[in-house]
Amino acid sequence: MTNGVAPNLVAAVDEARQWGRLMEMARLGAIPGDGVNRACLTPLDRESRRLLIGWGHAIGLTESIDALGNLFLRHEGTDPSLAPVLTGSHMDSQPSGGRFDGIWGVIAALEAIQALREAGTPTKRPIELVAWTNEEGGRFAPGCMGSMAYAGHSAPDTWDAATDKDDIRFGDALAEHLALEADIPRRPLGGKPFAYVEAHIEQGPKLEAEDRDIGIVTGIQGSRWFTVDITGKSDHAGTAPVGMRQDAVQDMVRAITALNTLMYDPTDVLRFTVARIEVSPNSSNSVAGNVRFTIDLRHPDNAVLLARGNAILGVVQAAMRFCTASVIERFTAAPVVFQPEVPDAIERAALAQGLNAVRMPSGAFHDAQFMVPLCPTGMIFVPSARGVSHHPSEYTAPEQLAAGARVLAAVLADLANQ
Amino acid sequence: MTNGVAPNLVAAVDEARQWGRLMEMARLGAIPGDGVNRACLTPLDRESRRLLIGWGHAIGLTESIDALGNLFLRHEGTDPSLAPVLTGSHMDSQPSGGRFDGIWGVIAALEAIQALREAGTPTKRPIELVAWTNEEGGRFAPGCMGSMAYAGHSAPDTWDAATDKDDIRFGDALAEHLALEADIPRRPLGGKPFAYVEAHIEQGPKLEAEDRDIGIVTGIQGSRWFTVDITGKSDHAGTAPVGMRQDAVQDMVRAITALNTLMYDPTDVLRFTVARIEVSPNSSNSVAGNVRFTIDLRHPDNAVLLARGNAILGVVQAAMRFCTASVIERFTAAPVVFQPEVPDAIERAALAQGLNAVRMPSGAFHDAQFMVPLCPTGMIFVPSARGVSHHPSEYTAPEQLAAGARVLAAVLADLANQ
Repeated sequence: MTNGVAPNLVAAVDEARQWGRLMEMARLGAIPGDGVNRACLTPLDRESRRLLIGWGHAIGLTESIDALGNLFLRHEGTDPSLAPVLTGSHMDSQPSGGRFDGIWGVIAALEAIQALREAGTPTKRPIELVAWTNEEGGRFAPGCMGSMAYAGHSAPDTWDAATDKDDIRFGDALAEHLALEADIPRRPLGGKPFAYVEAHIEQGPKLEAEDRDIGIVTGIQGSRWFTVDITGKSDHAGTAPVGMRQDAVQDMVRAITALNTLMYDPTDVLRFTVARIEVSPNSSNSVAGNVRFTIDLRHPDNAVLLARGNAILGVVQAAMRFCTASVIERFTAAPVVFQPEVPDAIERAALAQGLNAVRMPSGAFHDAQFMVPLCPTGMIFVPSARGVSHHPSEYTAPEQLAAGARVLAAVLADLANQ
Repeated sequence: MTNGVAPNLVAAVDEARQWGRLMEMARLGAIPGDGVNRACLTPLDRESRRLLIGWGHAIGLTESIDALGNLFLRHEGTDPSLAPVLTGSHMDSQPSGGRFDGIWGVIAALEAIQALREAGTPTKRPIELVAWTNEEGGRFAPGCMGSMAYAGHSAPDTWDAATDKDDIRFGDALAEHLALEADIPRRPLGGKPFAYVEAHIEQGPKLEAEDRDIGIVTGIQGSRWFTVDITGKSDHAGTAPVGMRQDAVQDMVRAITALNTLMYDPTDVLRFTVARIEVSPNSSNSVAGNVRFTIDLRHPDNAVLLARGNAILGVVQAAMRFCTASVIERFTAAPVVFQPEVPDAIERAALAQGLNAVRMPSGAFHDAQFMVPLCPTGMIFVPSARGVSHHPSEYTAPEQLAAGARVLAAVLADLANQ
C-alpha cells in the first residue's frame, strides 16, 4: 500500500459529489459574483459546521469539538489506540472571499475519507478530519487561532480581547459559539497526531502557469502583522489652517509612502500590504484625529522578515510631521520547512496516479505551519485560475479538485497504515 | 429702538439659564471628553427637538415642522401678516463634536426671544426660531440639506438616495422622522423672511487671539465636496506579487500625495481636507480592491475654488498606477457676501452694549449662506477657545455666550420692528 496505488480507492473519489458539497457550502454566505462571506463564529459558520457534521454522520464519522471551537470528525482505525492522521483546513472565509479557500480542504478530507470507507479499505490508524476555527483572521485578527492553540503555539486565551468591527470580543464570540454547540461532545484541546496533511487551493499563479495538477508544498513563507496607530487632532475642515493641523490622514499618507521605500524589493518576492484603514471620526468635514492601519509583511527568508519588520517603527515615526505614531506587532510566524515524510507521500501518490506534480513553497500561510512542531506535516495544492484568491472570482475546476482529493485519499491511506 | 439699546431687554438675557439649557442639551449624545455625538434624524435628535419644543411652549411659542424636518418656533408679532425675522441654527453635531456648534445658535435664539417677551417689548414682526435639519452632513452628506431645500437652492427630494454608514437612505430616515413627529403641525416648505440672523461659535482662532467679544460676519467662504472612487482588484496579501497587484490603497496614497501638490497654498488660506476613507474589503490580509475617499475644498475666492476643484479629476487619474478612478462632486457652495442690513444691525447692537466687535468672513459654512438670495442675512460669532471645533474640547465660556445672546436679542428687536 505504501508504494502503490489503490485503484478502487482512487475510483471511489466522486468528482460530482465533492463539487456538489462545495457548491452547497458556497450558498452559506454567498455574495455577488460567486463569492462567499462567511466569518468565523457567526450563525453562517455554525450552519456550515452543522452541514458538515450531517455529512459525516451519514458515513459513520463521529464529531467532537475543543475549547477553541475546532471541529473534528473521526474515522476509526483498526487500532484506535494509535495516533491519528489529521487532515482538514478551515471553513471561514475572507469578507469578500471565494468558494474554495479553506473549505475545499475540509470537503476534500471528507471526500477522501468517504472514498476510503466505500472502497472497503480499513486503515490501521484513525483519521481525523479537522475544521480549524478562524484561519482567515478576517473577523478577528490574527488568523490561525484554532491551530495555534491546538499546537500549543499560543495559550488558548491569548486572543480573548481581540475585537471585530462591531467591538465584539473574540472571547465572547467563542463562548457564545461553544454554548450553542454544547450538544457536540467536547474533547481536550491539543493532541499528538501521527501526521498532518492539508489540501488547499494554491492562491497563486504558479501551477496554472506551468500546467501542473498538484503542488507538493515544501514549506510556508513567514508573516509579520502590525497595527499602526497615528494620533493627531480632529478639527473643523473649514476653519483650521492646513499648516496648523494635526491631520492623521496626511501623516498616514507620509507613513505609507516611507514604508513603500523600506519594503521595496526589485525581485518582487517580499509581500508588503496595507489593506485595512480605520479613520476617526471619518467624517468628510472633520479633520482626521486618528488613523489605524495594518501592515502585512511576508517573506520566505527569516533574516529579511526580521530586518524589514524591525525597521517599521522607526520609519513610521520618522514620517510623522504633525502627529505621533505607535506600532504593535499582532502576529508573527517564522518561515517553516515541512519535514520530508508527508511531501514524499504526496509525491508517491501523484506519481502513481500519473499526475503532473511540482514541489513548491506556499506564499499564503496556513494552519499547517503550526503543526510542524507536532508531527510530520504537508500540504497538497491544486491550481487557482489566474492565481486569484480572497476574491469572489476565485476558481478551481471540478476535475482539478477531484485530482487533489484522489491524491489526498491515497496519502491518507498511506500514512494511516504506517 | 433701531439705534438704541433697550436696557431691560439686555438685562433679561439670563446667562445661567442659557448655559443650563446648553448643558442639558449636551447630555443628549454625550461622549467622553465633554463631546457630543448627535446625528440628524436619530432618536437623540428627536429627543433634543422635543426638549426645545417644551422650552418654547413654556414661554408661549408655537411649533411647526416642514417637509425636510426643519423645526420652527414662532413668537407672534403685533402684525402677524408681516414677514417674520428668522433666527436659529442646527441641533445635529459631528460624530465626535462639541457642545456648542449649532446648538448654541438655537438656544441663543430661544434666550433672545424669551428676553424680548420677559422685557415686555412686543415686536411688530413675528420672530421665528428655526432648527435646520442636517447642517453637519456627518451622517448624510452633504450638509445644509434643510436650509438648501427651504431656500429653493435644491429640490427637497435631491438627497433621498444619500445613505449613511449603515446604508440607511436619507429619504427613509426623513420619512420615519416625519411619521414620528406627525403630532407637530406641518407648514409648507420655504418662505420669505424679512431677515435671517444666525448666532454661532466662530470655530476658528481669530476672536480669541484678538480678544474680541463679537464677530460681525461679512460672508462665508465657498466649499466644494468631492468623492473619489478608486477601483482595483482584491487579492491574497501573501501570494499576489506586489508588482502585479491593483492595490487601491496604494493608488489612494499616490492620489492624495498628488492632490497635496495641487492644493498647496503658501498663504494657508485654502482648506484641503481628506477626512473620510472607506476601504473594501478592509481586511488586513486581502489587498484592497476599492477605496472611496472624500475631498473637502474651501476658499473665499470663487476663481480659486473653480480652478483647483476642476483640476481634481485629472490629477487623481494621472496618479493612478494600477487602478482606475472616478470623481464626483457631491456639493458646491459658492462664496457668499452678506447684504449690509444685518451686519450693520449687529454692529449697532454690539457698539450700544460696549462690546468689542470685528467684521470677519466665516471659514466654516453655515445654513445662513443659503438665506442670502431670500433676504438680508447675517451671523453673530462668539469666540472659540483655541479655535477648536468639531471636537469634544470645543469651548466657549458662559459669559461669552451671554454676550452673543444679548447682541442677538437687540438685533432681533431692531429687525422685527422695522
